Amino acid sequence: MSTQETNQSVANNDLDYVFHSWSVQNQLKPMAFKTGKGCYLEDFEGKQYLDFSSQLVNTNIGHQHPKVVAAIMEQAQLLATIAPAHANKTRALAAKKILEIAPKGFKKVFFTNAGADAVENAIRMARLYTGRRKVLSTYRSYHGNTGTAINATGEARRFNNEYAQDHIHFFGPYLYRSEFWSSTETEECQRALHHLRRIIECENPASIACIILESLPGSAGIMVPPAGYMQGVRQLCDEFGIMLILDEVMVGFGRTGKWLTLEHYEGVTPDLITFAKGVNSGYVPAGGVIISEKISDYFDDKIFPGGLTYSGHPLAMAAIVATIDAMREEGMVENAARLGAEVLNPGLKALAAKHRVVGEVRGLGLFWAIELVSDSEKKTKFTAADMNKVKQLCMEKGLVPFIAENRIHVAPPLIVTEAEVQKALAIYDEVLSVFA
Amino acid sequence: MSTQETNQSVANNDLDYVFHSWSVQNQLKPMAFKTGKGCYLEDFEGKQYLDFSSQLVNTNIGHQHPKVVAAIMEQAQLLATIAPAHANKTRALAAKKILEIAPKGFKKVFFTNAGADAVENAIRMARLYTGRRKVLSTYRSYHGNTGTAINATGEARRFNNEYAQDHIHFFGPYLYRSEFWSSTETEECQRALHHLRRIIECENPASIACIILESLPGSAGIMVPPAGYMQGVRQLCDEFGIMLILDEVMVGFGRTGKWLTLEHYEGVTPDLITFAKGVNSGYVPAGGVIISEKISDYFDDKIFPGGLTYSGHPLAMAAIVATIDAMREEGMVENAARLGAEVLNPGLKALAAKHRVVGEVRGLGLFWAIELVSDSEKKTKFTAADMNKVKQLCMEKGLVPFIAENRIHVAPPLIVTEAEVQKALAIYDEVLSVFA
Repeated sequence: MSTQETNQSVANNDLDYVFHSWSVQNQLKPMAFKTGKGCYLEDFEGKQYLDFSSQLVNTNIGHQHPKVVAAIMEQAQLLATIAPAHANKTRALAAKKILEIAPKGFKKVFFTNAGADAVENAIRMARLYTGRRKVLSTYRSYHGNTGTAINATGEARRFNNEYAQDHIHFFGPYLYRSEFWSSTETEECQRALHHLRRIIECENPASIACIILESLPGSAGIMVPPAGYMQGVRQLCDEFGIMLILDEVMVGFGRTGKWLTLEHYEGVTPDLITFAKGVNSGYVPAGGVIISEKISDYFDDKIFPGGLTYSGHPLAMAAIVATIDAMREEGMVENAARLGAEVLNPGLKALAAKHRVVGEVRGLGLFWAIELVSDSEKKTKFTAADMNKVKQLCMEKGLVPFIAENRIHVAPPLIVTEAEVQKALAIYDEVLSVFA
Repeated sequence: MSTQETNQSVANNDLDYVFHSWSVQNQLKPMAFKTGKGCYLEDFEGKQYLDFSSQLVNTNIGHQHPKVVAAIMEQAQLLATIAPAHANKTRALAAKKILEIAPKGFKKVFFTNAGADAVENAIRMARLYTGRRKVLSTYRSYHGNTGTAINATGEARRFNNEYAQDHIHFFGPYLYRSEFWSSTETEECQRALHHLRRIIECENPASIACIILESLPGSAGIMVPPAGYMQGVRQLCDEFGIMLILDEVMVGFGRTGKWLTLEHYEGVTPDLITFAKGVNSGYVPAGGVIISEKISDYFDDKIFPGGLTYSGHPLAMAAIVATIDAMREEGMVENAARLGAEVLNPGLKALAAKHRVVGEVRGLGLFWAIELVSDSEKKTKFTAADMNKVKQLCMEKGLVPFIAENRIHVAPPLIVTEAEVQKALAIYDEVLSVFA
């Protein structure tokens, strides 16, 4: 390949050899980025972009954090890889730091390569611990692309992948498009919990191993659960002996202004927590399960039938240790909470008030959805063509957006400044004005 | 943690916080390694070990190859991570280099995090391409730990994980413990193919999407298929419109003295190839699917319903490019072929002739099984306790072995020297003498 790359030449090379995720291959028009720094990416022609996607909502510390890059380099020079059966010093330290972030009562960490296999192994643990087969999850959810995880997933990406048994789906709360004919958040909460109780009863409670929920549903639409919902789910789990798995893959590690999003739900402690992405900002592939004491203890004298070659990979572990340290030292979680509440929240609400195509804005911390509708009465979703235009316009104006269905997901790195949030809000404002 | 680590202190720290793969947690006695170089690992007390496991048969280039470490460091400084939707220069180059290794007629690479999700996505492609549901695989196989991959797996690790539908298992050839009452390799081959034909006929050929086979079954016992078997499988696939997936996760990238193990089977071209491990020696988690032209073309205008956050991760891609380059420059595949044929093969056969507990040795290149039996007439497998003793003795003598059921799997890095192979053979000899 030439050293005189253009964005187009890099994209063309990519399209010649690389098969892409979740796509129609001949419709791809990939962007090409050469490098990045903090909240910015730079393409092969020197143009800078403000990254308000955090890629796939993973680069919570921003691009090329020097401390994490240095930690990866140091570990690479010492010991790049080692089998999971052997003890590894960095792995133990990473697990310890993750357990310090988890709620009380969590004892061990099982490391995986990413979120999908974290979900696979959490469900495996719940099934073995309970001796039950069924898994409940919401229709509006995404949990990963492998056999069990894609069937726990509720949204349409499941449709061509239904080969796993014993997955049951239910509706979670989402007042803007209520499945329960609710008119208030309180009503939505009560009805969603009633619906879940009825599903549990009708599926035979004694057959249900676990309920898995994203602590805040991410790809499916950033639907913040109404006050009391998560507590109600925990109570139903307790009543019927069902394990509660909270999936923090997308929303963990500061995204919503707390270390874990579950901290927003007072009194709610899950039995298993899945994580990936933010744990090391995706600098090295990693995920895992944080295991409660009772489930950890259960496997003390019983075989755990799951595992993988790169479980606790040293480079990934070094990146985890350095990421958590950097987040603490630089107060990134606090920054996310403050900027989310004081700048992004009011800024997005002002956009919603101004633009009739904004059906709703909702979110927590630095994780928000702008739901775009062509008819605000009927809540008619923007078409794929319109959303492509939104994406195109954002990119032209120097912002990398996260587009999902008819929504812009706002997910900047947690190191973002007030000025950068204001800059992004101004770009969204200009783009939305095109659809006035 | 103290800077005065001992092996025991590092292991204890690990056991306090880390949940381990495929284990009874309170029976773990992990080794602790501080660093490595080439074919050697060093523990926290300065002891050197000859690594004849290549960890989980992945460090084909040995430990800490300077060229690959440098490539990881360079990429980490440029761009550690980027979402798979964006084009990436290193990713395109990695895909190109992999396609240069693949047989003619392969067009694109889909990158995953490891072998399990490579298998998941290959099976997904085969099902969508054929419009059929069933997956055939052998009982003596291992294909990964996620929902679909663990059900494609035949061996006992599947037992607690059977939640996927439409998986059918059959017996492959294995003369030493024939399932077909054969007395010669020719007979075993013919009968195994007859058995597979009967399974296909009885399962309804029109319902079978694919047959997935390890090009050489690895964890399940390193059973080299008899001459003609793989050709026979390919013919059955052609006859019934079934896709053939060859799983090269463990045996690809030089392990058996060819770039891909499928090169040993003249005239056999699969429809999809899965890889991981050796592709970058596991220095950064990576796997993938090499896609034939017809299947790649099929998805040009149809959505592919699979994907993952770290697909084509830049650090993993940089490690792939550097690994393939280093393997070529240093003639590692040729070294594996030569030392396998000239030193390891005769050396292991001499051990088999000398020790009555060796039931059989078998393998290809630098990938061999020593099958241990307490009664050579009845072929009674060594007990777990005896195998633990084998492991313990090897470690004491400074060799990291790979133990699977009643077998020692011999799998040194491909950079191993004749002297190192002789040293390992001498250690195996001493250890086996204990069981005389």
